Amino acid sequence: MREAKVHRIATASPDDVSGLARAIETGEIMADGIVAILGKTEGNGCVNDFTRAFSVQALKAELSRHLPAEAVNGIAYVMSGGTEGALSPHLLVLERREGQASTGGTSSLAIGSALTENLRPEHLGTLSQVAMVADGVRAAMADASITDPADVHFVQIKCPLLTAERISRATREGLTVTTRDTLKSMGFSRGASALGVAVALGELSIDAFDEGLICRDLSLWSSRASTSAGVELENHEIVVLGMSRDWSGPLAVDHAVMVDAIHVEPVRAMLERLGIGRMADFVALLAKAEPGTSGTLRGDRHTMLDDSDISATRHARAFVAGVLSGMVGTAQIFVSGGAEHQGPDGGGPVAVIARRTVEIPGPRHGEKA
Amino acid sequence: MREAKVHRIATASPDDVSGLARAIETGEIMADGIVAILGKTEGNGCVNDFTRAFSVQALKAELSRHLPAEAVNGIAYVMSGGTEGALSPHLLVLERREGQASTGGTSSLAIGSALTENLRPEHLGTLSQVAMVADGVRAAMADASITDPADVHFVQIKCPLLTAERISRATREGLTVTTRDTLKSMGFSRGASALGVAVALGELSIDAFDEGLICRDLSLWSSRASTSAGVELENHEIVVLGMSRDWSGPLAVDHAVMVDAIHVEPVRAMLERLGIGRMADFVALLAKAEPGTSGTLRGDRHTMLDDSDISATRHARAFVAGVLSGMVGTAQIFVSGGAEHQGPDGGGPVAVIARRTVEIPGPRHGEKA
Amino acid sequence: MREAKVHRIATASPDDVSGLARAIETGEIMADGIVAILGKTEGNGCVNDFTRAFSVQALKAELSRHLPAEAVNGIAYVMSGGTEGALSPHLLVLERREGQASTGGTSSLAIGSALTENLRPEHLGTLSQVAMVADGVRAAMADASITDPADVHFVQIKCPLLTAERISRATREGLTVTTRDTLKSMGFSRGASALGVAVALGELSIDAFDEGLICRDLSLWSSRASTSAGVELENHEIVVLGMSRDWSGPLAVDHAVMVDAIHVEPVRAMLERLGIGRMADFVALLAKAEPGTSGTLRGDRHTMLDDSDISATRHARAFVAGVLSGMVGTAQIFVSGGAEHQGPDGGGPVAVIARRTVEIPGPRHGEKA
Amino acid sequence: MREAKVHRIATASPDDVSGLARAIETGEIMADGIVAILGKTEGNGCVNDFTRAFSVQALKAELSRHLPAEAVNGIAYVMSGGTEGALSPHLLVLERREGQASTGGTSSLAIGSALTENLRPEHLGTLSQVAMVADGVRAAMADASITDPADVHFVQIKCPLLTAERISRATREGLTVTTRDTLKSMGFSRGASALGVAVALGELSIDAFDEGLICRDLSLWSSRASTSAGVELENHEIVVLGMSRDWSGPLAVDHAVMVDAIHVEPVRAMLERLGIGRMADFVALLAKAEPGTSGTLRGDRHTMLDDSDISATRHARAFVAGVLSGMVGTAQIFVSGGAEHQGPDGGGPVAVIARRTVEIPGPRHGEKA
Repeated sequence: MREAKVHRIATASPDDVSGLARAIETGEIMADGIVAILGKTEGNGCVNDFTRAFSVQALKAELSRHLPAEAVNGIAYVMSGGTEGALSPHLLVLERREGQASTGGTSSLAIGSALTENLRPEHLGTLSQVAMVADGVRAAMADASITDPADVHFVQIKCPLLTAERISRATREGLTVTTRDTLKSMGFSRGASALGVAVALGELSIDAFDEGLICRDLSLWSSRASTSAGVELENHEIVVLGMSRDWSGPLAVDHAVMVDAIHVEPVRAMLERLGIGRMADFVALLAKAEPGTSGTLRGDRHTMLDDSDISATRHARAFVAGVLSGMVGTAQIFVSGGAEHQGPDGGGPVAVIARRTVEIPGPRHGEKA
Repeated sequence: MREAKVHRIATASPDDVSGLARAIETGEIMADGIVAILGKTEGNGCVNDFTRAFSVQALKAELSRHLPAEAVNGIAYVMSGGTEGALSPHLLVLERREGQASTGGTSSLAIGSALTENLRPEHLGTLSQVAMVADGVRAAMADASITDPADVHFVQIKCPLLTAERISRATREGLTVTTRDTLKSMGFSRGASALGVAVALGELSIDAFDEGLICRDLSLWSSRASTSAGVELENHEIVVLGMSRDWSGPLAVDHAVMVDAIHVEPVRAMLERLGIGRMADFVALLAKAEPGTSGTLRGDRHTMLDDSDISATRHARAFVAGVLSGMVGTAQIFVSGGAEHQGPDGGGPVAVIARRTVEIPGPRHGEKA
Repeated sequence: MREAKVHRIATASPDDVSGLARAIETGEIMADGIVAILGKTEGNGCVNDFTRAFSVQALKAELSRHLPAEAVNGIAYVMSGGTEGALSPHLLVLERREGQASTGGTSSLAIGSALTENLRPEHLGTLSQVAMVADGVRAAMADASITDPADVHFVQIKCPLLTAERISRATREGLTVTTRDTLKSMGFSRGASALGVAVALGELSIDAFDEGLICRDLSLWSSRASTSAGVELENHEIVVLGMSRDWSGPLAVDHAVMVDAIHVEPVRAMLERLGIGRMADFVALLAKAEPGTSGTLRGDRHTMLDDSDISATRHARAFVAGVLSGMVGTAQIFVSGGAEHQGPDGGGPVAVIARRTVEIPGPRHGEKA
Repeated sequence: MREAKVHRIATASPDDVSGLARAIETGEIMADGIVAILGKTEGNGCVNDFTRAFSVQALKAELSRHLPAEAVNGIAYVMSGGTEGALSPHLLVLERREGQASTGGTSSLAIGSALTENLRPEHLGTLSQVAMVADGVRAAMADASITDPADVHFVQIKCPLLTAERISRATREGLTVTTRDTLKSMGFSRGASALGVAVALGELSIDAFDEGLICRDLSLWSSRASTSAGVELENHEIVVLGMSRDWSGPLAVDHAVMVDAIHVEPVRAMLERLGIGRMADFVALLAKAEPGTSGTLRGDRHTMLDDSDISATRHARAFVAGVLSGMVGTAQIFVSGGAEHQGPDGGGPVAVIARRTVEIPGPRHGEKA
């Protein structure tokens, strides 16, 4: 029976892998059990953010000291740029090991991952991307031994974007791209990926919506998708977090959906369900933040969309980071921007991983007896 | 017996005074009772932010339609730039009127204001500025009929800064300025002004600290000062908010001090004392935000101080705005940056104004029977 | 016979009108002769730049001391934000007076202006806007007594943009807008205005191009249009500069077209034709700058289009300002950004006004005997 | 007899070493002859610019495929961040080989390099740093076989800065640092390094100035120093370019000093001396750019120093890049910011490398017969 481990490691710079190296050295992390590494890096999180690629390169170099190349490349590296406000740069290393056989049929945190093929530039933002991602999510669920989509609590995806060069290449081949604007291509890629999650989890049927609605009809959304775009990859890296009785260990995960940037009640309820502060400790938080398209928050005008000095995405990350940090007592949380089709317009999904400190016999968090 | 009124008015742009005009027209605001106008404007809140001056000019133009010039200039205009995150640009119009004679000796919100003389450039950041501001705070307290410093809950000050031109002028006259860096001069001005508040409120003795400690020894601070610097004035505009039995009306004010950006407990306690959500409605919130000097938040490294793309002040405002908005349910709050000597290093004071909805006989909020 | 005067006045801040006030006081400028005031203000020159409106309001307040309201509002105020690099904030006051009767049939600088009606949001970026602007340019030419389009050397236009609010308003009325992106709307507005100039000057026929080509087919362009968008107006303010024998005085204007940001030869040739440094002094320079769409400059990759920290427009303005300042010996020049359909893709028009210092009998600069 | 080769290689991203790899593969570059690699990378060029370290890491990884570790680390990597305006990211690979024995005693381009020890944080900005750098420059001159300082035309130095962490470390050890402001530490480091160059070249005597004048008395400067600070190193990497009869080959170098950002005459004269366009081709340009401290350019106010949205260094780089690109016909030039003590206040040194295309017997460029 497998056991998931989640290691939250501070970084001193995008290429600082000393914490990871130390944990592998002491045996706290077994390199060959690493499924995925998520990270918040300190670039601008938008188009010209090279900290993500820099971080991945450093991580691969470190892991190459312990694993063969194929294994190194089999890990999903999901770097998300932008540590606005007090957000603290860090890594979340998701690992699985053989654990104790569980008793009592309790559920524990389950982790699965999958990598898709490269996405052709002309497919970015289309149903082809949605379908590719949906297949990838299903593969990741299988990898985690999760069969019921209701047991999936968070799907983190790193997806590609369109650089000026890739647009040129497609155009020369006579193909049409969804957009010629690199920053907008990030939105289309994130949106299509999120819809892929929704399709895989049964939240939406792929036949139920028109391709033209991608990034246009924001009433379509997944409650558990978190997607980030970057220039350093051309495929998708997919990580699924959920609960499964086939896994053991003290970790648990749950999720909530915020309908806007200050919709704290569902988050509070989730923390309550997990028992944070009573019978469980906080381990990690993952969330999406976005400015939304209305230009307002509960009717009050904000200025995020019209600010030519600071990208709206950066504003939203800083603000929502504050909302959530105030609730969990730390800013070393994984808040990423650009939440198209991830939660309602202006809101987003939030997942928290906790470590149960009290052993209670019988059905565990969120499960049926 | 005077009664304080606080009007929170949304603005569509820095020079939008239509809401104010409408309120004066309907009689909701009596122009001749306006003591001060605080505002969050949508510039960068740093050196080259002209939205503050633009707003003041528009406000004065509107008020000139109702008041003689002397009265227009007697009002304290405290514009604070920077509406990062979801912060909503707005005005807080502080007004006082003759109110009902109070029964039962209850306390109500009291508002006082004062304007100092112009500050000589060479005095910025020195004990001369501290003393000038302390005198101004005392004058504002007297204006509010508040005798006990403990009844003061928030002192908002707009202070000047050093432009390249003012520095040159002083240098040519053979005088020394505290700093030749305009952005740093804003910090020195805010800090000296905050210490002036601390001295006036008895939190610190002016003899107890060395001028060289201004902006250096951050263990010196006021729990109730909020100071903002701007290029559009050369004097100080001081507004005092407190509680007094000499005032009537349903409004009340209280304050809390956050020791860091996510220190939510004192804020929660203050909201509880005010009875927000039970027997009082939220009216307004005023707070200071700053990145702090440690480079960390509860031990976790943040990147605000080393970010050459976005000023640390802007990061801090966005983040703390999120923390507080999540607690009061709106982002139309007055969060300003640069909190030198305003609360502990990395923290800051927070004040909330509430409207009592339930009449309870006997001593009111925060007062002795 | 009319005479044109061009006054270049430094400003200390967006609302500094002291130089203008002084010039009016001394009689150097006759307020009732002011046709237009162009200005470089120190905001970001993009969407949330309030320095433009702030400047216009200050100018109008100053002129109201000398002119009736109708005359004040009849002046074209063309404020362009963005003083990147060493660009120096300043005003160019274009004035006309009754001058001496010219002898010898020489040509001199001629200035005309016109204001269009408000542009409906749904017309922005369409042939309706092109036609409206073409009519306005013709009216301005007539105002300048210029009949031959070849005698027009520069047309400066201030045009509107689409704010989130105006987009919402049009959408609620069931109308379609060209774009829902405010920053992109500035491009469409500038582009359509530039094509309006091209149509009026006979460079393009309005029947020769499809509305869908606006901001898409950059092979369509005017060699003498310079358009800037701002949030502070909903109509177009049009100023035409040219040469005419019906005007007298020592000023002359000429233009050049740069095909890319460093295409200095045409500018050098223009300075030579004007005789700058030999028989004429430099008075003013007006130019457009843009990053272009290729992502390269003479085959070398630049990073302006992919920079999420600094708008491409700001980059281009700073760079081209350097190119041109190095040629004329001052950075107090009027370089504005966003040159859609203004010169070739990546290039732009440049106009220089000079003051002839040597009297030479016979036909003057650029004219047929 | 040695021959210098200078290879200008475009990069597609900070970690793109494909051009270098190809050149080594074809033999155009001999890896073991590489003395130094200078590069313009596309970060912000200020504190949090990780593109520099990312580039160095990628270069080292590529070179490790061809050279032993000691040789890889013996190369001076001088990455300068910031490709504002149209500046094109590229590498300048400086190589030396055994060349033909020269005839006629002509001078050719000579290249030398040296690496200093790590600089202790408390020595940054002090005479200790000046002396350390001066020694390093002398070592680099010896490496280039240049004995007469007048034959040195450009000294490029990469120097360290003070991060919040290094400041803390020194403070805990009871040591004083020159500044606690990371951005200011870059200026002090650059300035002290430049003065080290001046001392080594005999432009200044180390006994002639007080340590307190570093970055304060800007009348002290070197005409040939170009220094850049970065977070990725703690020592100095020094590269000297000059002319020597002990070297052969078609390359030549010369320099000029601009007293302000648009002082083009000395640059024009240098291009003339080199014969660019007549008997020599342009190969590379290296220059420093800075806003200067006066806040003006030839008496006209600029806004670089008061811009809280864009660092003054970035403004200056973009602007001066335009001035120089307009003169040499390409923006693939090495313009770096922060020119404290490098040329006069507001100006900076410029060096151009040319390839002679015409063989002329007798003394060559700049030499005595």
